[in-house]
Amino acid sequence: MVGVEAQDREAVRALLAAVRAEGRDALTAPEGRTVADAYGIAVPGEALARDVDEAVAHAARLGGRSVLKIVSPDILHKTDAGGVVVGVEGAAEVRAAFHRIIENARAHAPAARIDGVQVQQLLPPGQEVIVGAVTDPTFGKVVAFGLGGVLVEVLKDVTFRLAPVSADEAISMLDSIGAAEILRGVRGAPAVDRWALAEQIRRVSQLVTDFPEIAEVDLNPVIATPEGAVAADIRILLTTEVAKPRRTYSREEILHSMRRLMQPRSVAVIGASNERGKIGNSVMRNLVDGGFPGEIHPVNPRADDIQGRKAYKSVTDVPGEVDVAVFAIPARFVASALEEVGRKGIPNAVLIPSGFAETGEQALQDEIVAIAERHGVRLLGPNIYGYYSTWQDLCATFCTPYDVKGPVALTSQSGGIGMAILGFARSTRTGVSAIVGLGNKSDIDEDDLLTWFAEDPNTQCIAMHLEDLKDGRAFVEAARATVPKKPIVVLKAGRTSAGAKAAGSHTGALAGDDAVYDDILCQAGVIRAPGLNEMLEYARALPVLPAPRGDNVVIITGAGGSGVLLSDAIVDNGLRLMEIPADLDAAFKAFIPPFGAAGNPIDITGGEPPATYEATIRLGMEDPRIHALVLGYWHTIVTPPMVFAELTARVVEEFRARGVEKPVVASLAGDIEVEEACAYLFERGVVAYPYTTEKPVAVLGAKYRWARAAGLLT
Amino acid sequence: MVGVEAQDREAVRALLAAVRAEGRDALTAPEGRTVADAYGIAVPGEALARDVDEAVAHAARLGGRSVLKIVSPDILHKTDAGGVVVGVEGAAEVRAAFHRIIENARAHAPAARIDGVQVQQLLPPGQEVIVGAVTDPTFGKVVAFGLGGVLVEVLKDVTFRLAPVSADEAISMLDSIGAAEILRGVRGAPAVDRWALAEQIRRVSQLVTDFPEIAEVDLNPVIATPEGAVAADIRILLTTEVAKPRRTYSREEILHSMRRLMQPRSVAVIGASNERGKIGNSVMRNLVDGGFPGEIHPVNPRADDIQGRKAYKSVTDVPGEVDVAVFAIPARFVASALEEVGRKGIPNAVLIPSGFAETGEQALQDEIVAIAERHGVRLLGPNIYGYYSTWQDLCATFCTPYDVKGPVALTSQSGGIGMAILGFARSTRTGVSAIVGLGNKSDIDEDDLLTWFAEDPNTQCIAMHLEDLKDGRAFVEAARATVPKKPIVVLKAGRTSAGAKAAGSHTGALAGDDAVYDDILCQAGVIRAPGLNEMLEYARALPVLPAPRGDNVVIITGAGGSGVLLSDAIVDNGLRLMEIPADLDAAFKAFIPPFGAAGNPIDITGGEPPATYEATIRLGMEDPRIHALVLGYWHTIVTPPMVFAELTARVVEEFRARGVEKPVVASLAGDIEVEEACAYLFERGVVAYPYTTEKPVAVLGAKYRWARAAGLLT
Repeated sequence: MVGVEAQDREAVRALLAAVRAEGRDALTAPEGRTVADAYGIAVPGEALARDVDEAVAHAARLGGRSVLKIVSPDILHKTDAGGVVVGVEGAAEVRAAFHRIIENARAHAPAARIDGVQVQQLLPPGQEVIVGAVTDPTFGKVVAFGLGGVLVEVLKDVTFRLAPVSADEAISMLDSIGAAEILRGVRGAPAVDRWALAEQIRRVSQLVTDFPEIAEVDLNPVIATPEGAVAADIRILLTTEVAKPRRTYSREEILHSMRRLMQPRSVAVIGASNERGKIGNSVMRNLVDGGFPGEIHPVNPRADDIQGRKAYKSVTDVPGEVDVAVFAIPARFVASALEEVGRKGIPNAVLIPSGFAETGEQALQDEIVAIAERHGVRLLGPNIYGYYSTWQDLCATFCTPYDVKGPVALTSQSGGIGMAILGFARSTRTGVSAIVGLGNKSDIDEDDLLTWFAEDPNTQCIAMHLEDLKDGRAFVEAARATVPKKPIVVLKAGRTSAGAKAAGSHTGALAGDDAVYDDILCQAGVIRAPGLNEMLEYARALPVLPAPRGDNVVIITGAGGSGVLLSDAIVDNGLRLMEIPADLDAAFKAFIPPFGAAGNPIDITGGEPPATYEATIRLGMEDPRIHALVLGYWHTIVTPPMVFAELTARVVEEFRARGVEKPVVASLAGDIEVEEACAYLFERGVVAYPYTTEKPVAVLGAKYRWARAAGLLT
Repeated sequence: MVGVEAQDREAVRALLAAVRAEGRDALTAPEGRTVADAYGIAVPGEALARDVDEAVAHAARLGGRSVLKIVSPDILHKTDAGGVVVGVEGAAEVRAAFHRIIENARAHAPAARIDGVQVQQLLPPGQEVIVGAVTDPTFGKVVAFGLGGVLVEVLKDVTFRLAPVSADEAISMLDSIGAAEILRGVRGAPAVDRWALAEQIRRVSQLVTDFPEIAEVDLNPVIATPEGAVAADIRILLTTEVAKPRRTYSREEILHSMRRLMQPRSVAVIGASNERGKIGNSVMRNLVDGGFPGEIHPVNPRADDIQGRKAYKSVTDVPGEVDVAVFAIPARFVASALEEVGRKGIPNAVLIPSGFAETGEQALQDEIVAIAERHGVRLLGPNIYGYYSTWQDLCATFCTPYDVKGPVALTSQSGGIGMAILGFARSTRTGVSAIVGLGNKSDIDEDDLLTWFAEDPNTQCIAMHLEDLKDGRAFVEAARATVPKKPIVVLKAGRTSAGAKAAGSHTGALAGDDAVYDDILCQAGVIRAPGLNEMLEYARALPVLPAPRGDNVVIITGAGGSGVLLSDAIVDNGLRLMEIPADLDAAFKAFIPPFGAAGNPIDITGGEPPATYEATIRLGMEDPRIHALVLGYWHTIVTPPMVFAELTARVVEEFRARGVEKPVVASLAGDIEVEEACAYLFERGVVAYPYTTEKPVAVLGAKYRWARAAGLLT
């Protein structure tokens, strides 16, 4: 809490109500100042002059040089209207400026109501920054910070956080922009007062949190100096749009229904069929062929027996408790079947059919959501391929069963991406705990799944493809609770589609959807994958690697050329090449030819025997100052690929048995035998790729990003 | 030519000589001004004041407000020394400023020689930019342009070109910075005089071209306004370092020796051996087993017969003309054998052995280079795996033969990367015309190879891994001559290693090695690959795709989710989604379900039969307004992967037969059958990848970059 007095808050409430009563959605400068004063947002001394004599008197009282600005509820862009004069001093200059401003305003907008001219203290020169807040459709109130001026508006060097922010979060924003260095003082310029600046951010964030009806706030510019941070201008815009409250469930409710979804004992298939090619046939076969050990109950009013199991006319006829009802019937029949599911008290409905919101049938979707809410049924979908819960041998999809059990849970909003997940997993033999289609997300969405996967002992890594979030704040909350336990990889599609969003303020224009997503996902500790393939590779590789315990990465390579490329990748992925201490350098040198290079990368040179790889990798694992190894292998006759793979896996396993675990990744440059060697290494805990120096380091970088977000590294 | 009078040039020459004679390497401000005047570089009116009265007189004569600056050969950073006062007007202010500057300078550097104080016209407010020139170790004289001020120094938004630049090149620099928009005027600010600014760049580039002894020039800032561009400050630094002239060959000489290297009729193997495991044994076997139809002559003083062929004591004993001598002997024996190669008149020596500059034996390398130059022998290597010329069935390496003949020539500086090239090519069945190891590049380097590959009818695409360029200008020249004919892909390693380079000027500090490489390679029309895997994928895919004839890219997808990701990739890769005209939109709509989306991406929706894919792809090929297709396939039972692959390949082939060629790339989302479908498509001219939406579009982006550089698109 910012420490705003209740009476100040009430004064703001009254002021905003008055503005709304007048049918305005923009506050005037004096109104903005009143709000700023109430919230302790520092602004320059100023006063409203209704005539030229008042202007002269105010200027004299404020002292020094002044800025004069038009005050009109009808003129938003004061500069464009010729309504601003900067740096006047003395009665004559003030008089002239006053008259010029009024004339310009009349010329610009003859019908504009003019309340007068604001006389403001001219702020000392300093670094211009912008502090603002907007209402994001996904995340709600969001604060923004960036360097001010035309340059930054063009370069879009801005950062965002969920409002309200703490003092520490506000300070972190100062370091999150590209030009952060400038605030610390460059080329002899002094550093600005960082805490004063952070305080402006914090207070703005509190203001928009307290008043949801404030759509946007702009402090632009804030003049930051070594002595403080003062907002030269404040703009506040109101909105009548109020976000519809979303039905929420408690954590216990979510875990209870998700457990029955992901670990069911009894599944009903509504629309089960004996006819090959029908979805209800595929789902039944996949449940049976996948080896699901629980009860499987086909429901079909026109059959007595489906795939050798007794069929029921209605789900209400199924005996005993049912955990999941999988729908494989056309959209138009879903509502009535869902009523029966509700009456039966089944907690989960998996809606495979399409033909809802995605085809424009929003009303049909709203209808089923209403039915589900009435009965307390959670909905997965509609418009999905279904879901896999591999440790339960549960394949409730119309695709094909997948049986490599493992630690990765994957979800996708799109069916096509879901199929790509399945194909990739099968091709790379990725161990999977679950694959879940989310489709239209009429109810269950990413935050429900995160809440479950965070608790699921079979899941060690979560990867999610998403195009939007129904409730960004719920997602962030679930992600923050999950990340300390396991990494979350997100592929956010539609990064670039947002394009120009109509916005009434600078901050609004800067808050392209993706900029906000990017900053806030990062703050939530999520690893954002740049593309589909990266999401899949991170998901496959992250659980294989142990968490690093420190920042010191060492490259050991048999090919100098790989060493250079691996070093590039280290920097690209935000990692740090360890500066090797003299004793360690000497220890490595003892193993490598005299013309090899210790330092980092450690270039053992090509043509070395297995013993050289082994001795140097062993030393890398042994020395506690080293926290992660990146290996560059060069295919030679002296050390063939499988020999390298075997010795590397053996050394890593030996240390693991002794309790020493470090992430080890490898880039294998060589003929096609390196592919087999990579598969061998991957299965044994070393993330290895052929023909690329980038992928292994990108995966290591993702692991480090998670370790930092999880608080495992200082 | 800038049109500098001969007498002005001579005046500059004399001035620079005088500065050198005094043992200085930095020009004073008045000296800088003299140079600027000679080269027509616009600077403000100014004069040197030796005492305070002169200062007052100069200020009065120049009129308006003035800037006063210390003039001392010993004070480089005037601001840091408190040696600059801005905006003084009237005798009293000038007097005070003069005294303050002298006091500050004395305090800052008591021993500094002080020539006086420069009184300069205060320039009108405008956009600050920086124009400069540096001497790059690879590219020689290079001009730089960026927005001025602390902000840009921090954000490093600068662009570089080889000096001298033409007026058009200079103008292109204004558009090559991230903040280019600012110069065109944003938020009501007027645009600057672009041609005046370009003229400043052009003149600086001419100055450093005329005087190689000028190491660096800084015009910082240049004040750009709608009326002109004037340099507020000019700094010039001299150097004594003169680049050693490199031995050069004419184009005809290069083509002649390269033809004999790449299409030899007779090859001698020096150090050929019967002993398995020896390099001389592998090379002999690979030549023989690879099926090389020319003569193969083993040379070994201790054998009469090697692998069934007559062996010679010395290469001088080999009968007839020999085109290539492959060295497979230890480094210490190379020099004497090379003498014999020279005496025999063999034009090419391929030096596989290591143990030269890369292990610190620079003297040994210098010795063999001297021998080679004396005899006119061109050297490939040393320290390489050898080379492949597949259309000649020539495998002169110690690796394994590679027999998929095709259009791609690949080169690598590193042996490890060479092995990765071989493995990748074999794994993906990439058709290859040559693979060449360059190693230490003691002689033959990338520009020789480019000159050859540009002419080689078997080569349609060239991909090069490099860590440095021996002669950046020769490379650029060869690249510019090649690009109109075929694409060049470059993987430049060591992007990030350059780090902090000692530099005496702003421009120098901005010219991190990689920034210069990046801009200049781009200007040369080269496609820079961000990593090893991308280089390999571009090399494999570029020759498969026809060149696009225009910018209109259309996405046709069966999975909406892929459509979103493909759209992201389109923007990321600098491509443009076509705005679909109404008639074309209607034509697409006729083929897709009512809830599908035309527009672009064209979402045909999941679950559609082959006919829908075929009709829409056919329309995409047919309509001449569409220039490239990106396909998103979603694996369903209705349209299985191979059905999609077959119909797509068939339609593309049908149009090709009718003379309609457009690049078509595809992203296949599905179960593992999509891998086979991708291979099928790739072989038939459609670049297709499974489990990724990024790669196909990245390849299309690379093809577009080439098409633009080759002048095929306006």
